Amino acid sequence: MLGPELEELIKQLKRLPGFGPRSARRAALYMLKNKTKSLDPLIAILEKVKASIDECNICGNLDSQNPCSICSDPKRKEDLLIVVEDVADLWALERGKILKAQYHILGGHLSPLEGIGPEQLRITALLDRLQMGHFKEVILATNSTIEGQTTAHYLSDKLAAFNLKITKLAHGIPIGGELDYIDDNTIMAALNARISI
Amino acid sequence: MLGPELEELIKQLKRLPGFGPRSARRAALYMLKNKTKSLDPLIAILEKVKASIDECNICGNLDSQNPCSICSDPKRKEDLLIVVEDVADLWALERGKILKAQYHILGGHLSPLEGIGPEQLRITALLDRLQMGHFKEVILATNSTIEGQTTAHYLSDKLAAFNLKITKLAHGIPIGGELDYIDDNTIMAALNARISI
Repeated sequence: MLGPELEELIKQLKRLPGFGPRSARRAALYMLKNKTKSLDPLIAILEKVKASIDECNICGNLDSQNPCSICSDPKRKEDLLIVVEDVADLWALERGKILKAQYHILGGHLSPLEGIGPEQLRITALLDRLQMGHFKEVILATNSTIEGQTTAHYLSDKLAAFNLKITKLAHGIPIGGELDYIDDNTIMAALNARISI
Repeated sequence: MLGPELEELIKQLKRLPGFGPRSARRAALYMLKNKTKSLDPLIAILEKVKASIDECNICGNLDSQNPCSICSDPKRKEDLLIVVEDVADLWALERGKILKAQYHILGGHLSPLEGIGPEQLRITALLDRLQMGHFKEVILATNSTIEGQTTAHYLSDKLAAFNLKITKLAHGIPIGGELDYIDDNTIMAALNARISI
Protein backbone atom coordinates (compact mmCIF):
# COMPACT_ATOMS: atom_id res chain seq x y z
CA MET A 1 0.00 0.00 0.00
CA LEU A 2 3.05 2.28 -0.15
CA GLY A 3 3.00 4.67 -3.05
CA PRO A 4 5.66 4.41 -5.78
CA GLU A 5 7.75 7.24 -4.26
CA LEU A 6 7.99 5.56 -0.86
CA GLU A 7 8.68 2.17 -2.46
CA GLU A 8 11.53 3.74 -4.43
CA LEU A 9 12.95 5.52 -1.37
CA ILE A 10 12.92 2.28 0.62
CA LYS A 11 14.52 0.45 -2.32
CA GLN A 12 17.33 3.01 -2.47
CA LEU A 13 17.90 2.89 1.29
CA LYS A 14 17.95 -0.91 1.26
CA ARG A 15 20.95 -0.79 -1.08
CA LEU A 16 23.08 0.90 1.57
CA PRO A 17 25.25 -1.44 3.59
CA GLY A 18 23.73 -2.23 6.97
CA PHE A 19 20.16 -1.63 5.86
CA GLY A 20 17.57 -4.39 5.66
CA PRO A 21 13.94 -4.01 4.59
CA ARG A 22 12.78 -3.17 8.11
CA SER A 23 15.43 -0.59 8.92
CA ALA A 24 14.98 1.01 5.47
CA ARG A 25 11.25 1.39 6.16
CA ARG A 26 11.94 2.85 9.60
CA ALA A 27 14.50 5.31 8.23
CA ALA A 28 12.17 6.40 5.41
CA LEU A 29 9.39 6.99 7.89
CA TYR A 30 11.68 8.87 10.24
CA MET A 31 12.76 11.20 7.42
CA LEU A 32 9.17 11.85 6.38
CA LYS A 33 8.06 12.54 9.91
CA ASN A 34 11.02 14.86 10.48
CA LYS A 35 11.20 16.81 7.25
CA THR A 36 12.97 19.87 8.61
CA LYS A 37 15.11 18.00 11.12
CA SER A 38 16.18 15.07 8.96
CA LEU A 39 15.02 15.06 5.33
CA ASP A 40 16.00 18.64 4.45
CA PRO A 41 19.50 18.62 5.95
CA LEU A 42 20.12 15.14 4.55
CA ILE A 43 19.24 16.25 1.02
CA ALA A 44 21.37 19.38 1.44
CA ILE A 45 24.46 17.51 2.59
CA LEU A 46 24.06 14.78 -0.04
CA GLU A 47 23.96 17.46 -2.76
CA LYS A 48 27.01 19.11 -1.26
CA VAL A 49 28.93 15.87 -0.95
CA LYS A 50 27.98 14.94 -4.49
CA ALA A 51 29.35 18.23 -5.81
CA SER A 52 32.45 18.47 -3.66
CA ILE A 53 33.88 15.07 -2.78
CA ASP A 54 36.27 13.40 -5.17
CA GLU A 55 38.99 10.79 -5.21
CA CYS A 56 42.46 12.14 -4.40
CA ASN A 57 44.73 11.79 -7.43
CA ILE A 58 47.65 10.77 -5.26
CA CYS A 59 46.37 8.35 -2.62
CA GLY A 60 42.80 7.54 -3.62
CA ASN A 61 41.25 9.01 -0.45
CA LEU A 62 37.87 10.75 -0.72
CA ASP A 63 37.97 14.44 0.11
CA SER A 64 36.71 17.85 -0.95
CA GLN A 65 40.23 18.90 -1.90
CA ASN A 66 42.58 17.29 -4.38
CA PRO A 67 45.27 16.37 -3.39
CA CYS A 68 43.40 15.40 -0.24
CA SER A 69 43.96 16.95 3.17
CA ILE A 70 46.23 14.06 4.17
CA CYS A 71 48.42 14.23 1.06
CA SER A 72 48.71 18.00 1.36
CA ASP A 73 49.39 18.03 5.12
CA PRO A 74 52.99 19.24 5.56
CA LYS A 75 53.18 17.91 9.13
CA ARG A 76 53.02 14.26 8.11
CA LYS A 77 56.02 11.96 7.83
CA GLU A 78 57.06 12.02 4.21
CA ASP A 79 58.92 8.73 4.37
CA LEU A 80 56.22 6.45 5.80
CA LEU A 81 53.46 5.04 3.59
CA ILE A 82 50.53 2.93 4.81
CA VAL A 83 48.85 0.83 2.13
CA VAL A 84 45.19 0.01 2.84
CA GLU A 85 42.42 -1.68 0.91
CA ASP A 86 39.74 0.92 1.39
CA VAL A 87 39.01 4.50 2.49
CA ALA A 88 37.23 3.06 5.54
CA ASP A 89 40.54 1.45 6.58
CA LEU A 90 42.29 4.81 6.32
CA TRP A 91 39.58 6.32 8.54
CA ALA A 92 40.00 3.49 11.06
CA LEU A 93 43.78 3.94 11.22
CA GLU A 94 43.46 7.72 11.50
CA ARG A 95 41.04 7.36 14.43
CA GLY A 96 43.97 5.81 16.29
CA LYS A 97 45.89 9.10 15.93
CA ILE A 98 49.19 7.23 16.30
CA LEU A 99 51.03 7.66 13.03
CA LYS A 100 50.96 10.77 10.91
CA ALA A 101 51.84 8.93 7.75
CA GLN A 102 51.05 9.07 4.06
CA TYR A 103 48.45 6.63 2.73
CA HIS A 104 47.77 4.67 -0.41
CA ILE A 105 44.36 3.20 -1.05
CA LEU A 106 44.30 0.11 -3.24
CA GLY A 107 40.55 0.18 -3.80
CA GLY A 108 40.05 -3.44 -2.77
CA HIS A 109 41.98 -6.69 -2.63
CA LEU A 110 43.07 -9.30 -5.13
CA SER A 111 40.27 -11.75 -5.73
CA PRO A 112 40.52 -13.97 -8.81
CA LEU A 113 37.02 -15.32 -8.13
CA GLU A 114 35.53 -11.83 -8.41
CA GLY A 115 37.76 -11.01 -11.37
CA ILE A 116 39.87 -8.53 -9.42
CA GLY A 117 43.49 -8.75 -10.52
CA PRO A 118 46.38 -6.32 -9.96
CA GLU A 119 45.15 -4.09 -12.82
CA GLN A 120 41.84 -3.48 -11.02
CA LEU A 121 43.66 -2.11 -7.96
CA ARG A 122 45.68 1.10 -7.67
CA ILE A 123 48.97 -0.84 -7.73
CA THR A 124 50.61 0.92 -10.68
CA ALA A 125 49.97 4.22 -8.93
CA LEU A 126 51.57 2.76 -5.79
CA LEU A 127 54.68 1.65 -7.66
CA ASP A 128 54.89 5.08 -9.31
CA ARG A 129 54.82 6.75 -5.89
CA LEU A 130 57.49 4.42 -4.54
CA GLN A 131 59.60 5.07 -7.67
CA MET A 132 59.84 8.72 -6.63
CA GLY A 133 62.07 7.48 -3.84
CA HIS A 134 61.18 9.49 -0.71
CA PHE A 135 59.60 6.58 1.21
CA LYS A 136 61.68 4.57 3.65
CA GLU A 137 58.99 2.29 5.10
CA VAL A 138 55.76 0.84 3.71
CA ILE A 139 53.22 -0.68 6.12
CA LEU A 140 51.04 -3.20 4.27
CA ALA A 141 47.85 -2.74 6.28
CA THR A 142 45.49 -4.82 4.18
CA ASN A 143 42.82 -6.72 6.07
CA SER A 144 43.64 -9.86 7.99
CA THR A 145 41.51 -11.93 5.63
CA ILE A 146 42.72 -14.46 3.09
CA GLU A 147 42.26 -11.94 0.26
CA GLY A 148 43.88 -9.14 2.23
CA GLN A 149 46.86 -11.29 3.13
CA THR A 150 47.18 -12.57 -0.45
CA THR A 151 47.23 -8.95 -1.60
CA ALA A 152 49.89 -8.06 0.97
CA HIS A 153 51.96 -11.05 -0.15
CA TYR A 154 51.68 -10.03 -3.79
CA LEU A 155 52.66 -6.46 -2.91
CA SER A 156 55.63 -7.47 -0.76
CA ASP A 157 56.97 -9.40 -3.79
CA LYS A 158 56.50 -6.36 -6.02
CA LEU A 159 58.06 -4.05 -3.45
CA ALA A 160 61.15 -6.20 -2.90
CA ALA A 161 62.79 -4.37 -5.83
CA PHE A 162 62.73 -1.10 -3.88
CA ASN A 163 65.09 -0.21 -1.07
CA LEU A 164 62.34 -0.16 1.55
CA LYS A 165 61.50 -1.48 4.97
CA ILE A 166 58.24 -3.42 4.47
CA THR A 167 56.13 -4.08 7.56
CA LYS A 168 52.67 -5.30 8.49
CA LEU A 169 50.33 -4.85 11.44
CA ALA A 170 50.89 -7.03 14.52
CA HIS A 171 48.46 -9.84 15.32
CA GLY A 172 47.27 -10.51 18.85
CA ILE A 173 44.54 -10.25 21.42
CA PRO A 174 42.42 -7.10 20.98
CA ILE A 175 42.74 -4.65 23.89
CA GLY A 176 40.02 -5.52 26.38
CA GLY A 177 39.41 -8.85 24.64
CA GLU A 178 38.37 -11.82 26.74
CA LEU A 179 40.29 -14.94 25.81
CA ASP A 180 37.17 -17.07 25.98
CA TYR A 181 35.59 -15.07 23.15
CA ILE A 182 38.60 -14.91 20.87
CA ASP A 183 39.02 -17.30 17.94
CA ASP A 184 41.71 -19.97 18.06
CA ASN A 185 43.79 -18.51 15.24
CA THR A 186 44.13 -15.19 17.04
CA ILE A 187 45.08 -16.94 20.27
CA MET A 188 47.69 -18.94 18.39
CA ALA A 189 49.07 -15.79 16.77
CA ALA A 190 49.17 -14.03 20.15
CA LEU A 191 50.98 -16.98 21.74
CA ASN A 192 53.51 -17.16 18.93
CA ALA A 193 54.17 -13.41 19.14
CA ARG A 194 54.39 -13.43 22.94
CA ILE A 195 56.55 -10.73 24.51
CA SER A 196 58.72 -11.06 27.63
CA ILE A 197 57.74 -8.78 30.50
CA MET B 1 40.69 13.35 9.11
CA LEU B 2 37.29 13.43 7.39
CA GLY B 3 36.47 16.74 5.81
CA PRO B 4 33.53 18.79 7.13
CA GLU B 5 31.18 17.58 4.35
CA LEU B 6 31.78 13.91 5.16
CA GLU B 7 31.50 14.58 8.90
CA GLU B 8 28.16 16.28 8.30
CA LEU B 9 26.88 13.48 6.04
CA ILE B 10 27.80 10.87 8.65
CA LYS B 11 26.16 12.99 11.36
CA GLN B 12 22.93 13.17 9.35
CA LEU B 13 22.96 9.45 8.63
CA LYS B 14 23.58 8.62 12.29
CA ARG B 15 20.31 10.35 13.17
CA LEU B 16 18.34 7.78 11.21
CA PRO B 17 16.95 4.93 13.30
CA GLY B 18 19.06 1.80 13.00
CA PHE B 19 22.27 3.66 12.17
CA GLY B 20 25.26 3.71 14.48
CA PRO B 21 28.57 5.50 13.86
CA ARG B 22 30.05 2.54 12.02
CA SER B 23 27.10 1.82 9.73
CA ALA B 24 26.76 5.55 8.99
CA ARG B 25 30.41 5.67 7.90
CA ARG B 26 29.96 2.56 5.75
CA ALA B 27 26.81 3.93 4.12
CA ALA B 28 28.46 7.32 3.42
CA LEU B 29 31.41 5.58 1.84
CA TYR B 30 29.18 3.32 -0.22
CA MET B 31 27.29 6.32 -1.58
CA LEU B 32 30.49 8.14 -2.48
CA LYS B 33 31.97 5.13 -4.19
CA ASN B 34 28.74 4.51 -6.10
CA LYS B 35 27.72 8.00 -7.16
CA THR B 36 25.65 7.02 -10.17
CA LYS B 37 24.28 3.81 -8.66
CA SER B 38 23.47 5.05 -5.17
CA LEU B 39 24.07 8.75 -4.44
CA ASP B 40 22.33 10.18 -7.53
CA PRO B 41 19.14 8.08 -7.36
CA LEU B 42 18.98 8.56 -3.58
CA ILE B 43 19.13 12.34 -3.91
CA ALA B 44 16.54 12.22 -6.70
CA ILE B 45 14.04 10.14 -4.73
CA LEU B 46 14.55 12.15 -1.54
CA GLU B 47 13.76 15.36 -3.45
CA LYS B 48 10.72 13.70 -4.97
CA VAL B 49 9.48 12.35 -1.65
CA LYS B 50 10.06 15.73 -0.02
CA ALA B 51 7.92 17.44 -2.64
CA SER B 52 5.18 14.86 -2.98
CA ILE B 53 4.55 13.01 0.29
CA ASP B 54 2.18 14.50 2.82
CA GLU B 55 0.01 13.43 5.73
CA CYS B 56 -3.48 12.30 4.74
CA ASN B 57 -6.09 14.70 6.14
CA ILE B 58 -8.40 11.84 6.99
CA CYS B 59 -6.34 9.04 8.49
CA GLY B 60 -2.85 10.49 9.00
CA ASN B 61 -1.15 8.07 6.58
CA LEU B 62 1.78 9.36 4.49
CA ASP B 63 1.13 9.35 0.76
CA SER B 64 1.56 11.33 -2.41
CA GLN B 65 -2.18 11.81 -2.69
CA ASN B 66 -4.55 13.41 -0.18
CA PRO B 67 -6.85 11.75 0.84
CA CYS B 68 -4.36 8.86 0.73
CA SER B 69 -4.70 5.84 -1.54
CA ILE B 70 -6.23 3.83 1.31
CA CYS B 71 -8.85 6.42 2.24
CA SER B 72 -9.76 6.92 -1.41
CA ASP B 73 -9.88 3.19 -2.27
CA PRO B 74 -13.53 2.36 -3.02
CA LYS B 75 -12.94 -1.40 -2.62
CA ARG B 76 -12.26 -1.19 1.12
CA LYS B 77 -14.78 -1.99 3.81
CA GLU B 78 -16.38 1.28 4.80
CA ASP B 79 -17.54 0.04 8.19
CA LEU B 80 -14.28 -1.31 9.62
CA LEU B 81 -11.68 1.00 11.13
CA ILE B 82 -8.25 -0.05 12.41
CA VAL B 83 -6.64 2.36 14.86
CA VAL B 84 -2.83 2.19 14.95
CA GLU B 85 -0.11 4.20 16.66
CA ASP B 86 2.08 4.82 13.66
CA VAL B 87 2.29 4.69 9.86
CA ALA B 88 4.74 1.80 10.23
CA ASP B 89 1.99 -0.18 11.97
CA LEU B 90 -0.37 0.48 9.07
CA TRP B 91 2.32 -0.80 6.69
CA ALA B 92 2.80 -3.91 8.84
CA LEU B 93 -0.94 -4.68 8.90
CA GLU B 94 -1.27 -4.05 5.16
CA ARG B 95 1.57 -6.47 4.44
CA GLY B 96 -0.70 -9.15 5.88
CA LYS B 97 -3.23 -8.43 3.11
CA ILE B 98 -6.03 -9.84 5.26
CA LEU B 99 -8.40 -6.99 5.92
CA LYS B 100 -9.23 -4.26 3.46
CA ALA B 101 -10.20 -1.80 6.14
CA GLN B 102 -10.00 1.92 6.81
CA TYR B 103 -7.22 3.15 9.11
CA HIS B 104 -6.68 5.84 11.66
CA ILE B 105 -3.19 6.79 12.75
CA LEU B 106 -2.87 8.20 16.25
CA GLY B 107 0.65 9.47 15.78
CA GLY B 108 1.97 7.78 18.93
CA HIS B 109 0.71 6.55 22.27
CA LEU B 110 -0.24 8.17 25.55
CA SER B 111 2.84 8.74 27.65
CA PRO B 112 2.54 11.13 30.60
CA LEU B 113 6.28 10.85 31.20
CA GLU B 114 7.04 12.17 27.71
CA GLY B 115 4.27 14.76 28.01
CA ILE B 116 2.06 13.04 25.44
CA GLY B 117 -1.57 13.36 26.44
CA PRO B 118 -4.74 12.80 24.36
CA GLU B 119 -4.40 16.28 22.76
CA GLN B 120 -1.03 15.31 21.27
CA LEU B 121 -2.58 12.34 19.45
CA ARG B 122 -5.08 12.40 16.61
CA ILE B 123 -7.91 11.39 18.93
CA THR B 124 -10.28 14.29 18.23
CA ALA B 125 -9.99 13.48 14.53
CA LEU B 126 -10.81 9.85 15.37
CA LEU B 127 -13.92 10.79 17.34
CA ASP B 128 -15.00 13.09 14.50
CA ARG B 129 -14.72 10.21 12.05
CA LEU B 130 -16.70 7.90 14.32
CA GLN B 131 -19.33 10.62 14.76
CA MET B 132 -20.07 10.38 11.03
CA GLY B 133 -21.60 7.03 11.86
CA HIS B 134 -20.64 4.65 9.05
CA PHE B 135 -18.28 2.48 11.13
CA LYS B 136 -19.55 -0.72 12.73
CA GLU B 137 -16.30 -2.08 14.17
CA VAL B 138 -13.12 -0.48 15.44
CA ILE B 139 -10.01 -2.62 15.94
CA LEU B 140 -7.70 -1.00 18.50
CA ALA B 141 -4.38 -2.22 17.09
CA THR B 142 -2.02 -0.21 19.27
CA ASN B 143 1.20 -1.93 20.25
CA SER B 144 1.27 -4.63 22.89
CA THR B 145 3.38 -2.42 25.15
CA ILE B 146 2.28 -0.78 28.38
CA GLU B 147 1.84 2.58 26.62
CA GLY B 148 0.04 1.01 23.67
CA GLN B 149 -2.32 -0.89 25.95
CA THR B 150 -2.93 2.18 28.10
CA THR B 151 -3.82 4.08 24.94
CA ALA B 152 -6.19 1.31 23.83
CA HIS B 153 -7.81 1.32 27.26
CA TYR B 154 -8.27 5.09 27.14
CA LEU B 155 -9.75 4.84 23.65
CA SER B 156 -12.13 2.02 24.50
CA ASP B 157 -13.54 4.22 27.29
CA LYS B 158 -13.96 7.11 24.87
CA LEU B 159 -15.51 4.86 22.23
CA ALA B 160 -18.04 3.28 24.60
CA ALA B 161 -20.42 6.17 23.82
CA PHE B 162 -20.67 5.04 20.19
CA ASN B 163 -22.69 2.12 18.98
CA LEU B 164 -19.64 0.14 17.87
CA LYS B 165 -18.06 -3.26 18.18
CA ILE B 166 -14.62 -2.60 19.70
CA THR B 167 -11.99 -5.32 19.25
CA LYS B 168 -8.25 -5.81 19.70
CA LEU B 169 -5.63 -8.10 18.17
CA ALA B 170 -5.29 -11.62 19.57
CA HIS B 171 -2.29 -12.55 21.70
CA GLY B 172 -0.49 -15.86 21.28
CA ILE B 173 2.53 -17.73 19.99
CA PRO B 174 3.92 -16.19 16.79
CA ILE B 175 3.62 -18.49 13.77
CA GLY B 176 6.80 -20.55 13.58
CA GLY B 177 7.74 -19.50 17.10
CA GLU B 178 9.62 -21.96 19.28
CA LEU B 179 8.19 -22.15 22.78
CA ASP B 180 11.64 -22.17 24.33
CA TYR B 181 12.36 -18.72 22.91
CA ILE B 182 9.06 -17.09 23.77
CA ASP B 183 8.63 -14.91 26.82
CA ASP B 184 6.56 -16.14 29.75
CA ASN B 185 3.81 -13.53 29.39
CA THR B 186 3.17 -14.55 25.78
CA ILE B 187 3.07 -18.23 26.77
CA MET B 188 0.60 -17.41 29.52
CA ALA B 189 -1.56 -15.41 27.13
CA ALA B 190 -1.46 -18.25 24.59
CA LEU B 191 -2.43 -20.79 27.27
CA ASN B 192 -5.30 -18.65 28.51
CA ALA B 193 -6.58 -18.13 24.97
CA ARG B 194 -6.22 -21.78 24.02
CA ILE B 195 -8.56 -23.12 21.35
CA SER B 196 -10.12 -26.59 21.19
CA ILE B 197 -9.13 -28.60 18.12
